[in-house]
Amino acid sequence: MIDIQNQSDGRNVPLAKVGVKGLEYPIRVLDKVKKVQYTTAKADLYADLPRHFKGAHMSRFIEIFHRYRENLSMPRFLEMLETIREELEAESAFGSLAFPYFLEKRAPVSGLPGMMSYQCRYQGRVNILKAGGSGQPVAGSRIGTDRDGLNGSGLSPYSRRFTVAVSVPVATVCPCSKAISDRGAHNQRGIVSVELEAGPFFWIEDIIELVEKAASSPVYSLIKREDEKFITEHAYDNPKFVEDLVRDVYIGIKELNFFPRFSVEAENFESIHNHNAFAYAEFGGA
Amino acid sequence: MIDIQNQSDGRNVPLAKVGVKGLEYPIRVLDKVKKVQYTTAKADLYADLPRHFKGAHMSRFIEIFHRYRENLSMPRFLEMLETIREELEAESAFGSLAFPYFLEKRAPVSGLPGMMSYQCRYQGRVNILKAGGSGQPVAGSRIGTDRDGLNGSGLSPYSRRFTVAVSVPVATVCPCSKAISDRGAHNQRGIVSVELEAGPFFWIEDIIELVEKAASSPVYSLIKREDEKFITEHAYDNPKFVEDLVRDVYIGIKELNFFPRFSVEAENFESIHNHNAFAYAEFGGA
Amino acid sequence: MIDIQNQSDGRNVPLAKVGVKGLEYPIRVLDKVKKVQYTTAKADLYADLPRHFKGAHMSRFIEIFHRYRENLSMPRFLEMLETIREELEAESAFGSLAFPYFLEKRAPVSGLPGMMSYQCRYQGRVNILKAGGSGQPVAGSRIGTDRDGLNGSGLSPYSRRFTVAVSVPVATVCPCSKAISDRGAHNQRGIVSVELEAGPFFWIEDIIELVEKAASSPVYSLIKREDEKFITEHAYDNPKFVEDLVRDVYIGIKELNFFPRFSVEAENFESIHNHNAFAYAEFGGA
Amino acid sequence: MIDIQNQSDGRNVPLAKVGVKGLEYPIRVLDKVKKVQYTTAKADLYADLPRHFKGAHMSRFIEIFHRYRENLSMPRFLEMLETIREELEAESAFGSLAFPYFLEKRAPVSGLPGMMSYQCRYQGRVNILKAGGSGQPVAGSRIGTDRDGLNGSGLSPYSRRFTVAVSVPVATVCPCSKAISDRGAHNQRGIVSVELEAGPFFWIEDIIELVEKAASSPVYSLIKREDEKFITEHAYDNPKFVEDLVRDVYIGIKELNFFPRFSVEAENFESIHNHNAFAYAEFGGA
Repeated sequence: MIDIQNQSDGRNVPLAKVGVKGLEYPIRVLDKVKKVQYTTAKADLYADLPRHFKGAHMSRFIEIFHRYRENLSMPRFLEMLETIREELEAESAFGSLAFPYFLEKRAPVSGLPGMMSYQCRYQGRVNILKAGGSGQPVAGSRIGTDRDGLNGSGLSPYSRRFTVAVSVPVATVCPCSKAISDRGAHNQRGIVSVELEAGPFFWIEDIIELVEKAASSPVYSLIKREDEKFITEHAYDNPKFVEDLVRDVYIGIKELNFFPRFSVEAENFESIHNHNAFAYAEFGGA
Repeated sequence: MIDIQNQSDGRNVPLAKVGVKGLEYPIRVLDKVKKVQYTTAKADLYADLPRHFKGAHMSRFIEIFHRYRENLSMPRFLEMLETIREELEAESAFGSLAFPYFLEKRAPVSGLPGMMSYQCRYQGRVNILKAGGSGQPVAGSRIGTDRDGLNGSGLSPYSRRFTVAVSVPVATVCPCSKAISDRGAHNQRGIVSVELEAGPFFWIEDIIELVEKAASSPVYSLIKREDEKFITEHAYDNPKFVEDLVRDVYIGIKELNFFPRFSVEAENFESIHNHNAFAYAEFGGA
Repeated sequence: MIDIQNQSDGRNVPLAKVGVKGLEYPIRVLDKVKKVQYTTAKADLYADLPRHFKGAHMSRFIEIFHRYRENLSMPRFLEMLETIREELEAESAFGSLAFPYFLEKRAPVSGLPGMMSYQCRYQGRVNILKAGGSGQPVAGSRIGTDRDGLNGSGLSPYSRRFTVAVSVPVATVCPCSKAISDRGAHNQRGIVSVELEAGPFFWIEDIIELVEKAASSPVYSLIKREDEKFITEHAYDNPKFVEDLVRDVYIGIKELNFFPRFSVEAENFESIHNHNAFAYAEFGGA
Repeated sequence: MIDIQNQSDGRNVPLAKVGVKGLEYPIRVLDKVKKVQYTTAKADLYADLPRHFKGAHMSRFIEIFHRYRENLSMPRFLEMLETIREELEAESAFGSLAFPYFLEKRAPVSGLPGMMSYQCRYQGRVNILKAGGSGQPVAGSRIGTDRDGLNGSGLSPYSRRFTVAVSVPVATVCPCSKAISDRGAHNQRGIVSVELEAGPFFWIEDIIELVEKAASSPVYSLIKREDEKFITEHAYDNPKFVEDLVRDVYIGIKELNFFPRFSVEAENFESIHNHNAFAYAEFGGA
């Protein structure tokens, strides 16, 4: 049967990314407490396509992802991208994996348990080291997938890039509203999103905890009246702008001295507007 | 050229609705202050398909909508549905038109203007009166499109149905949180959605005003600090559960004595949870 | 601590539904092949609120759902609603549970496996039988949760209602385009959504299979060229309008003689338009 | 009244972006045929916040946008960003404006007219030139808003950046499916998204036309059978992978010799899968 994709192409346009988007799959990831967590994901998987090929063999992305789906820890995700790169005979492979990550969280006073969901996303790129841009891989440049160096320390920093994004819902009380009002203060749900360029292995749980401590208050799935009283007063005593949230989370992550590059953003679903307030900072350059 | 849709069908299954969905169009609607408002809409347009036809001629929905797009007042929307029903040779036609409706609103103290957007939806059905379910229309049963009777008073109540839904973002302060806490009270943005089965003509603006008055506070696009102080204190003095919002809006609409059937729902983007609180009531039966 | 929700309310407005919306949770459901399937869900949970109560105790919905999350088979889902109704001291409880359901599907020629996801939704209502609308439950009217009667046969048909909706992506070739064109025929992805009012227990897998057989072709996650050739030719040989899809699925479900009420809809993401084609039929009345 | 935002901040964290997100507004933009087009937009507006300020005065973004809303041509959009930068006393201002853009398009054979909607987005950044990073603007560095140089040629290329993104729905026939099958070929709706870094002024209409010509076929809102036959056969005669689409649009835009940097992506809603095929290329570096 004719292989159209494999034909040569004379248009001389290399494609930075070719692949599959919006693939929905059940997956398993690591969990600090339960060892393993079952969840569901949307995956995008790409490789570059050199100028002389007409098309990519898209089914290979699915075959490879299908093999890796039951253990998508951070190192395994990168290993999967490396496999995609090799089997697609590409210089680069890219992947994005978005999934809700669940933690059981206890109410602050009653101690009652409920599940919280946090939207997470792995994003990675692996890139073979080339000699002079010829498109030919350099012998021996295969990047290790050792657990302690997710971004391939010891090799070129451009050979591999892996980031983890986590979105944490929080409660925020407006410092301005509190200061100028005789009573009350407007407050709202907000989302703090952190994107971390991974160095050594880390637990998503630890980042979530850091963000929740920086907010006026964490949010909970299940609370009783004694919890609601505690949360209301605690939040009122800790007013935060989106600007404060971003700065406090930024300082907290920087002090971990763990991530070479990261960004922090906060978005508040303002209770007094029908639009949102937003702030963003980044560390370590693009 | 062969007309497949027009062929007869032997499966003996009548289809309640056949048509087009997700058509995005620029439209014009009425505006109480400016006379005419330009906005953009998503339209769904359907007709029933009798059991003996194989398919509907879908292009006719677009042709008719294209003719009516520049004046989609409530009576004209129903007139359009009647035209669809006739040109598709159907017993019933259905339409849904969702669009943001914009109002300039002034801040409560500074008086500064900003635009607010409110999601609206017309939904309508026209149905020809049949003698004995033969599928043949009764002579003379054509329903008038007079402005003063959007739901065809004087004819069978089942001959025509038209509802208008409006979603109004508001601020709500939690009465429980206020009562049990020594200071502060959690509050959040909420959305109140009203769906009205239209009798005589009415202005969307009047419904929006009624809903905003029932909330802890309206929300605004543009406010200054003096407005923020006013809103914070006013909202704190008027705490409302979703249950209260629904009941107060329900009573307000019922007292208008204008709508034979309506429903009210409220959804709060709780600042202490990552899920929402919800309440719903309806008047006049389904 | 004061219990505001429990206070009496003088506005005389009963609320049809009060509860929580958009709760995201990991759940387990039954799986025909693997016995148990892990997935993630969005839940909405409501109860009615009699006119004389000011508010509902929303935390109870979460507590109950948290207890049931690890086994949300159809009968257990209804049992959960019954528990909500009782613990909230309500006449009715309502629940909706939306989740992707995953099946491993093999390509038609190569036999290679890939995972397919199907959006599913349970929707249920339980309602206590009242004597004269007094709001007092009738002694002994507790509805059994026996596996063989999800909608409580033997009791009033209004005492319990449970539906399962399944959305199945398919490929459809346009019969008109094929008939009038000298070569080719436009085709596209479509979604067939079936909503079934459950009688006895059934497997979602069987409904999916029935729908896929009614389409021009099923869709797959992983296919090779020999599969693509087969699918292309098979689909071209089986052209279907949205109208045909709905009718053929309707007949197939009716012949099962299993569901007292159901609806079928089909939506095609037309390859020649930027809007969709739609058809809908229902059996057994509202 | 106390001005909390204006207080000094000791945390030493500069924020790259602070502002408002998700503001929905009616706007007016230029239209090649009708001169002016009314549409609706979602706007995000940000400025940087130096390390020594506690917060931004968010209401100023709304005030400025409100003034500019009735004429948001490309040069005016940049002028608005410059005004934001000045009034917020910031070094940089950023804006994104997403809106559907509508064109009347005639069917290829019957000539019947229907409206097509194309999702568009302006994105811009203006940045004051600094002497030594002191945060003090250099005298005389104000950037002109002349129509013929949207990205401020003659000044530093980093002083201003403006891109326009346009998404064009198209029909694509799969070349592989056509080549290997005895009859038919799978095809589907796809979306080609082009992002252009603007040099001189250009019309969105011209980009849309270029993209539609590169596809297997344009899509239409309103077509009759003679059009459907033409589209089916024309598309079948012009099969295109997502890779082909991206390459042909890339070449077409490059040959305009008009845009210093641009990217092209294509996403196909594959009719044989429930996931999408994707390709991407860029010109002129990041």
